[in-house]
Amino acid sequence: MSNLREKLKEYLHLMDQDDISQVLNELSNTELLELWHDMNDEEASEFFLLLSEKRKVEFLTHLPEGDQEWLLLSINRDSTKEILMRLEPDDLADIIQAISPEVRESVWNSLSDEAKQETRFLLKFDEDDAAGLMTPRYVALRSNITVAQAIQFIRRGVEDIETIYYVYVVDPLKRLQGVISLREILFSNDNDRIGDKMVQNVVSVREDTDQEEVAKTLEDYDFLALPVVDRYNRLLGIVTFDDVIDVIREEQTEDIYRMGAMEGSADIYLETSVWGMIKKRIPWLIILLVLGTVTTNVLDAFGSIFASAYFLTLFIPVITQTGGNSGTQSSTLIIRGLAMGDLNFRDIGRVMLKELLVGLLMGVLLGLVILLRSVFLPPGLEVYQAMVVGISLVFVVLFSSLLGALAPLVIHRLGGDPTVIAGPLMSTFIDLTGITIYSTVAKELLSL
Amino acid sequence: MSNLREKLKEYLHLMDQDDISQVLNELSNTELLELWHDMNDEEASEFFLLLSEKRKVEFLTHLPEGDQEWLLLSINRDSTKEILMRLEPDDLADIIQAISPEVRESVWNSLSDEAKQETRFLLKFDEDDAAGLMTPRYVALRSNITVAQAIQFIRRGVEDIETIYYVYVVDPLKRLQGVISLREILFSNDNDRIGDKMVQNVVSVREDTDQEEVAKTLEDYDFLALPVVDRYNRLLGIVTFDDVIDVIREEQTEDIYRMGAMEGSADIYLETSVWGMIKKRIPWLIILLVLGTVTTNVLDAFGSIFASAYFLTLFIPVITQTGGNSGTQSSTLIIRGLAMGDLNFRDIGRVMLKELLVGLLMGVLLGLVILLRSVFLPPGLEVYQAMVVGISLVFVVLFSSLLGALAPLVIHRLGGDPTVIAGPLMSTFIDLTGITIYSTVAKELLSL
Repeated sequence: MSNLREKLKEYLHLMDQDDISQVLNELSNTELLELWHDMNDEEASEFFLLLSEKRKVEFLTHLPEGDQEWLLLSINRDSTKEILMRLEPDDLADIIQAISPEVRESVWNSLSDEAKQETRFLLKFDEDDAAGLMTPRYVALRSNITVAQAIQFIRRGVEDIETIYYVYVVDPLKRLQGVISLREILFSNDNDRIGDKMVQNVVSVREDTDQEEVAKTLEDYDFLALPVVDRYNRLLGIVTFDDVIDVIREEQTEDIYRMGAMEGSADIYLETSVWGMIKKRIPWLIILLVLGTVTTNVLDAFGSIFASAYFLTLFIPVITQTGGNSGTQSSTLIIRGLAMGDLNFRDIGRVMLKELLVGLLMGVLLGLVILLRSVFLPPGLEVYQAMVVGISLVFVVLFSSLLGALAPLVIHRLGGDPTVIAGPLMSTFIDLTGITIYSTVAKELLSL
Repeated sequence: MSNLREKLKEYLHLMDQDDISQVLNELSNTELLELWHDMNDEEASEFFLLLSEKRKVEFLTHLPEGDQEWLLLSINRDSTKEILMRLEPDDLADIIQAISPEVRESVWNSLSDEAKQETRFLLKFDEDDAAGLMTPRYVALRSNITVAQAIQFIRRGVEDIETIYYVYVVDPLKRLQGVISLREILFSNDNDRIGDKMVQNVVSVREDTDQEEVAKTLEDYDFLALPVVDRYNRLLGIVTFDDVIDVIREEQTEDIYRMGAMEGSADIYLETSVWGMIKKRIPWLIILLVLGTVTTNVLDAFGSIFASAYFLTLFIPVITQTGGNSGTQSSTLIIRGLAMGDLNFRDIGRVMLKELLVGLLMGVLLGLVILLRSVFLPPGLEVYQAMVVGISLVFVVLFSSLLGALAPLVIHRLGGDPTVIAGPLMSTFIDLTGITIYSTVAKELLSL
């Protein structure tokens, strides 16, 4: 990253503004963002003004929300107006939602009447639904026109449309009747009717379909865009593949956060305040801490065992950690399988059987490792002591593999999101059962 | 899922084959896959033959690898030939790589000469590189033709092309000179030259570019497709957005696996053998177990403390677990920030400062929780004992937050993949430092 900046610095004094502008316009949005983050305020706004009109608009939509607002304030009114005019309606609506109320008013006033109307229409919908992703600009035709007319229609005046590659066929009430790709249109004869060539069973999503389902549907059919309809099947807009890729990345981040015991949205680290960070992180830590203290009570109940065989205490962290790891593995595999649609609750028998075998074999292997390690390396246990630790580990690994697989299957079956059980929560449960198994096995084997 | 099957069963006896066929063809690929997994072999091949030719091809590419082979064997030779003929070249090459050598020969023999040639060309490249994703079928034109000629060219005979929405301009040596979208062509005048309208600075990827970078590039520019060139800038093929979405999903799975302490590819759970599963899972478990046993030695070294203040033993799991959780949170946030490009090594100062504040505040909060909990609930510690546990927890949470953030930054800086430090490996290190902090604090405070 900083390489790019240093290289640019080296050359910048050799170039005039046009050269610099050309170089900047050839960089990708990610590269531009890197430069942006490296600059002070004055440099940043100068840099922005060197971009082409098209790149300005693109770059603005890629900026973090806080920076968007700053940028719109720091450039002059005419530039702002020009940029806002060029934004896709869905991006414009996103920006208007993101900026603070004070700035919003001046931005709103600089919009054209058409843009105001489109934005008002889009702001009615929930950001996380299909309608929150859609653009209201698409190509729509009647079914009775010919291919030649359609081509002519497209070639004239649809320059503002995000994608012209799908043409939607609607009736006079705007109800969706069919869809035809531009490809299909071009491959048809000039005199063919659109209505005869279109696909009538249109795959569409409802305005309130969750964005993740929109993404799955588009992926599933490998479409470039999906139409969004209301409950009367009236066409409201279309969602394009690039918005869907953003959704996939966003959901991915939220899943990963949940596996790291955090809730909430995919904020940018450096832009989250200390307090915002604590709000995101502390709830799960407190819940897990309180749940985890049940191990304290279990250890207390078995207190005499640990007091009379001190070597057992030495292996408490190893037992809980290894159980946690094997349980996390199982739950990760099952959660992913459920998310990808490879697994279902009715596979529970096959899953449990596999985890039984895998858990048992891995348990025996790991038990042997700990046995050998604790006899031959410090603290140099007696063999019978090492056996207690090793045999406990077999049961702990077996049990945690089974629990790690079972829990997400059951949660999924009950309609919950299995990622809540991933990682830390799973380890906490497994700590508890691990300590219980360990204490019980030790008690039996040592006849305490 | 099973709902779909039950509904279909209810209606199936009322329908003739054409009706059934129509219903099946309206289902999405995911729905078809669900049905497929529910059926026995005979049902499965009957079901497949009821699909339209187009859907057969689509469905085949969505099937798990083992099932593809079975299916190609179970249907008759003519159907196989028909399907193979309709496959996109990149999908065909994938299938040929996936099937067993015995079946491969008969499949190979049923290919047309053109398909053989294309496949041979594609098989030269690495599956995980740009070239492994590309199709060699694209629209290429010379720069001197007119818009009207280009449209005519596209409308005639390019039916086999995966996307006609980007037209590439090449010189007689097939070197990439420019690109123009179909949209731009349609919006130009009939007599304009393609060479004057095309974009000359084409964003392309090299044949050996890693697939993840291909995905990032396409996303970054919101393109539908990217051209793949060799080192002489000769156009080899194009990668389309749907292949990129698959790459994003695949990389996502591999990252999540790594966070769950597993290596390797995104296999399907039920299709992985017990042995394959153990091979995927045991290496990390052994490494983590051996690393984790260092805690045994630390506890051994502080043995007298734990022996003389038994209440300390009761809180070992809580201390390690809470440290692990807060460390996992930090590392998750930092790893995600690095992956998304929001963070860089040079932000290390700001990151450490934030983790210092967040870790300290969270530590104090969690320390208070454990203090109150252990005084007022069983085992009902003395206040001075609970203070020891609480104060230890402050340091453990603070330290693990810092370590959790620092480790991925350093690994990233050294050119490694920070996800290796995520989750379990982080917890193991934190267990070790947590135990050390806990023992040391206890020793000082209790003057043991």
